[in-house]
Amino acid sequence: MPQAAKITAVDALPANEAKWIEFQKITWSDQEGKSRVWEAASRKTRGQSGVDAVAISTVIRHPSKPPSTIIILQYRPPADAVCVEFPAGLVDASETPSDASLRELHEETGYKGKLSYISPTIVSDPGMSTANMQLATVEVNLNEGDKEPEQVLDEGEFIERVVVPLDELFERLEKYSKEGKKVDARLWHWAAGLHFARTML
Amino acid sequence: MPQAAKITAVDALPANEAKWIEFQKITWSDQEGKSRVWEAASRKTRGQSGVDAVAISTVIRHPSKPPSTIIILQYRPPADAVCVEFPAGLVDASETPSDASLRELHEETGYKGKLSYISPTIVSDPGMSTANMQLATVEVNLNEGDKEPEQVLDEGEFIERVVVPLDELFERLEKYSKEGKKVDARLWHWAAGLHFARTML
Repeated sequence: MPQAAKITAVDALPANEAKWIEFQKITWSDQEGKSRVWEAASRKTRGQSGVDAVAISTVIRHPSKPPSTIIILQYRPPADAVCVEFPAGLVDASETPSDASLRELHEETGYKGKLSYISPTIVSDPGMSTANMQLATVEVNLNEGDKEPEQVLDEGEFIERVVVPLDELFERLEKYSKEGKKVDARLWHWAAGLHFARTML
Repeated sequence: MPQAAKITAVDALPANEAKWIEFQKITWSDQEGKSRVWEAASRKTRGQSGVDAVAISTVIRHPSKPPSTIIILQYRPPADAVCVEFPAGLVDASETPSDASLRELHEETGYKGKLSYISPTIVSDPGMSTANMQLATVEVNLNEGDKEPEQVLDEGEFIERVVVPLDELFERLEKYSKEGKKVDARLWHWAAGLHFARTML
């Protein structure tokens, strides 16, 4: 039975000790030709694809259950909380973002599906970091009686997957939030767009 | 006539020179009680509210035009591109996120509206940074013949606002992306959720 993860110390990280991220001092010429400086964080792991990460919006269709998606719950030290996210991960050095999407979905949730769409490269938090990603849509078609597949997690990886009917997604995220979990902004926005279409248009 | 902004140099930023962001070395105890380290970037500007930033999903209703939203286009040095985003901004030190939402919408787009919803605190990129935000929904009701209001921008701020019918939002973001602009991941996810509801459910 795993115990609750928790932070034991937060220290300043000297730039020369950082392995995964780095700080950039970006000098840029603005719209009036004036030289200015911007500070940004950057991942050091970006590979050939030029894309740091992928996330996967899955649609599970089943003969007798409502259309659903899969979200994952995992403790994230930067948020010091269990975060609620779409399945996601970094793109390996020589992998395509499409391949990474199917691989990550399989590892984190056990499900294998068909990629029906992948977004262009989008930027995660462009006022603060150079991080970018692509959002894939993967369709999973189940038959009556199909068993829930096994996750393929690394040792020391604790990821809970939850299948949620799309109709209930927004309310489920509100509920997790009230419980003290932190919802990823991108998943929240996707669910809010879906909810908006169904309630305000 | 403003010229195109561009990057002139990218240098490593020593931690002791960074004014806006800092690196944290987070020591945490994992689910098996093992001590591990995580690297994260953090904003140094978080105020009383505990929330770094807000973004605003606006709904403009008009007697003879389709329901629309407002997006903004601005050059972002970390992306080295014109980024397409919801209106957004940092929460001032002593301001509430709700007040910041109405203020930022007014400054960046000229529109004043009524806050109909604000999300709980959500996390922007929790694998990499401590950054968090809230997403507001603001309703703007226009009358026939209302003029487009004036933006309230600071000197040196170049922000273009675009009113887009909600029906056309997803395709518009795809088009911007093909032109080389970079769409913010959160706006993309919101539009993708909306598009999904209208085409796949």
